[in-house]
Amino acid sequence: MTQAIQARRGIITPEMVKVAEKERLDVEFIRQGVTAGNIVILRNNQRGNVEPVGVGKGLRTKVNASIGTSPEHFDMDGEMHKLEVAVKAGADTIMELSSGGDINAVRKMTLARTKLPVGTVPIYQAAIEATDNLGGVVNMNADQMFAVIERHAADGADFMALHCAINHDVIERLRNQPRVTDVVSRGGAFLTGWMLHNQKENPLYEQFDRILEIALKYDVTLSVGDAIRPGAIADSLDRAQVQGLILVGELVKRALDAGVQVMVEGPGHVPADQIQATILLQKQLCHKVPYFILGNLVTDIAPGYDHITSAIGGTIAAIAGADYICYVTPAEHLRLPTAEDVHEGVIAARIATHAADLVKGAKGAWEWDLEMSKARKALDWDKQISLAIDPEKARRYRAESNSDTTKACSMCGDFCAMKVVSQYLGTKTSDC
Amino acid sequence: MTQAIQARRGIITPEMVKVAEKERLDVEFIRQGVTAGNIVILRNNQRGNVEPVGVGKGLRTKVNASIGTSPEHFDMDGEMHKLEVAVKAGADTIMELSSGGDINAVRKMTLARTKLPVGTVPIYQAAIEATDNLGGVVNMNADQMFAVIERHAADGADFMALHCAINHDVIERLRNQPRVTDVVSRGGAFLTGWMLHNQKENPLYEQFDRILEIALKYDVTLSVGDAIRPGAIADSLDRAQVQGLILVGELVKRALDAGVQVMVEGPGHVPADQIQATILLQKQLCHKVPYFILGNLVTDIAPGYDHITSAIGGTIAAIAGADYICYVTPAEHLRLPTAEDVHEGVIAARIATHAADLVKGAKGAWEWDLEMSKARKALDWDKQISLAIDPEKARRYRAESNSDTTKACSMCGDFCAMKVVSQYLGTKTSDC
Repeated sequence: MTQAIQARRGIITPEMVKVAEKERLDVEFIRQGVTAGNIVILRNNQRGNVEPVGVGKGLRTKVNASIGTSPEHFDMDGEMHKLEVAVKAGADTIMELSSGGDINAVRKMTLARTKLPVGTVPIYQAAIEATDNLGGVVNMNADQMFAVIERHAADGADFMALHCAINHDVIERLRNQPRVTDVVSRGGAFLTGWMLHNQKENPLYEQFDRILEIALKYDVTLSVGDAIRPGAIADSLDRAQVQGLILVGELVKRALDAGVQVMVEGPGHVPADQIQATILLQKQLCHKVPYFILGNLVTDIAPGYDHITSAIGGTIAAIAGADYICYVTPAEHLRLPTAEDVHEGVIAARIATHAADLVKGAKGAWEWDLEMSKARKALDWDKQISLAIDPEKARRYRAESNSDTTKACSMCGDFCAMKVVSQYLGTKTSDC
Repeated sequence: MTQAIQARRGIITPEMVKVAEKERLDVEFIRQGVTAGNIVILRNNQRGNVEPVGVGKGLRTKVNASIGTSPEHFDMDGEMHKLEVAVKAGADTIMELSSGGDINAVRKMTLARTKLPVGTVPIYQAAIEATDNLGGVVNMNADQMFAVIERHAADGADFMALHCAINHDVIERLRNQPRVTDVVSRGGAFLTGWMLHNQKENPLYEQFDRILEIALKYDVTLSVGDAIRPGAIADSLDRAQVQGLILVGELVKRALDAGVQVMVEGPGHVPADQIQATILLQKQLCHKVPYFILGNLVTDIAPGYDHITSAIGGTIAAIAGADYICYVTPAEHLRLPTAEDVHEGVIAARIATHAADLVKGAKGAWEWDLEMSKARKALDWDKQISLAIDPEKARRYRAESNSDTTKACSMCGDFCAMKVVSQYLGTKTSDC
């Protein structure tokens, strides 16, 4: 039985208890959220080593870090190092997106090496196996696609991004209203190519019940959507995207009815003033299930800094109701991320989700800032560093200060603003 | 005659023409904005080498980079290097905030070395000279303060931050509603300390007419406010801050009546959901003159990443109506910025202002993103790099790609989404 089915029957599962403890919320709140579908608990029932993570309404906004090999670059140790870096930087979940080398081995090793929920995108492996064994992506077939999906589920994937919500209606709208960047989702592009070449409907859409069966069996959370997400500011909220979101809503309803845990994956490149509408539209069309977004990137012109463009959009989106943010690294649009890029990406995304959690009232968020500012006022450097979102960077920067005293703030030297005023207002500060 | 006085008399000045050309707007639009006071043109009439910069309604959102020595660290070459880095990274203006060594020399050299408008904070120098010559900050006197202000103006400072808008009413409210971080503005703290120690009113407030005289003589743009800005998320929009903003509004009115160009300086640490109110309140209380903000930093917990916390807040603020953003570097709260920090700070602030300019409809903003996304679609790497906000970083990242072809995108290898779909949709892409 999935978490959703148990929740509806009034059962409090150990997973709900763990999520409630981590979120410092009442377990009944979690159960009700899972019942309604506005909370999902990421945890495949085949995984013994996973710490379940809750995503959704009323919970802390979560951050995903994606890792994975490419056909040109297969380095298992390198990916495992990125996994460690992502976990240490504070990612809540990992997506394992390998498309090169021994994909099965990387997935299994990732699942074994982390306690975080792990997500996958089975269509990548289906496409690559079709290229290797069947002569090309367009030679994929439905049975093979579903076999890969079941393989990932049986291995323990806690959630899976599935490009179910693209069909010929959507492609037709894409044709009628040309985009600057067409389909930038890799999985969406594979399926679009397959559908056009074979003149058939998308098997993941047409045979969605087969996906539901697999999800029910393993309690895999489905992440539906994103196949048609805009990849350019100019393409945001076009008819193809919105048509795709309508399909997503229909599939979400079927998943909810079946007792399958489901969330929606979203864009992508969105101008800052279209973010709120983008999030609200998903919530309305998709029964308020959790929204997992990539970014949002608020401009196209900053390759090398897309961790920042997406931290901006991620904050605005999370305030508007996005529940879960996929990190974007500085390497986006340029190359595969290094371990350092992974670190930068996770920290930037955590800044975004925390800035939003201050607004959303997530438990503990406000207190964290308050403690930091009190430490600042007290010129307590050790505490400031330990409270910093990245203590190592804060410590390194602070050590590079020219200040020759450990007590005085390095910014103002003898003219420290806080010292001057504390002295006169009589407020408490350090003894410097 | 100041730009404001000339504008009201219907005179189109060469400075208005230059600003109109740079903004790609009609010069009459600029003249009307300067007349109304919702546009200022930064340019001291003593400076021969300055390219005037317009700030305000309907114009591109501007970015300021601050440099300057500290008492503990005086390195003229280092500061001049930071100046070069800031200019190259695309800062629109420079604030020269030196508080150590030969402050006059650093200011003069900065004014000589750049064509950008330069702003200063005279109270720093007044405080330091009082410490050196009069035995302490609290021994400053009014004549000495105004002498320093006039010295900066005569040297060519195009704008000056002046902490006029703090008086005993404000300090009383600070006492009655204690803050986590009291007064974090250095100049505000100097004056607060001085006022409390001497039990006198703030000379910059009480003798504001002397400031107006200097501003009229040199056409220095006044930047009023910020003395009482919140330095912690928990302190945002408290009574002291709002009381200070009421004073700012009164002083702004007097400046406008006198024909002095004036803008308002603002926070600081602001929770993301309080930014819009913060900006609207300034616009309403301060006759819609330009708003120059520091950040806004949307959380306190990210020392080492405050270029990101402030890029998030800066975008939201600029969309809400902020006209001018002072950069914040990764070194904020930890130490003085290095040249590398200056670079990171300027780029992050430019990302924020550009993301907002896409929304505000600034001329050329939308086209920039469109060109970038077209280059992405065409897999035209040279164009992507030349269009990047930081071409050097984009080039460096791209060069580190493992891709062995210059044409194919490095993200997907043989499985590039754009290639697969372009092939089937028949849209134009590169010949790879």
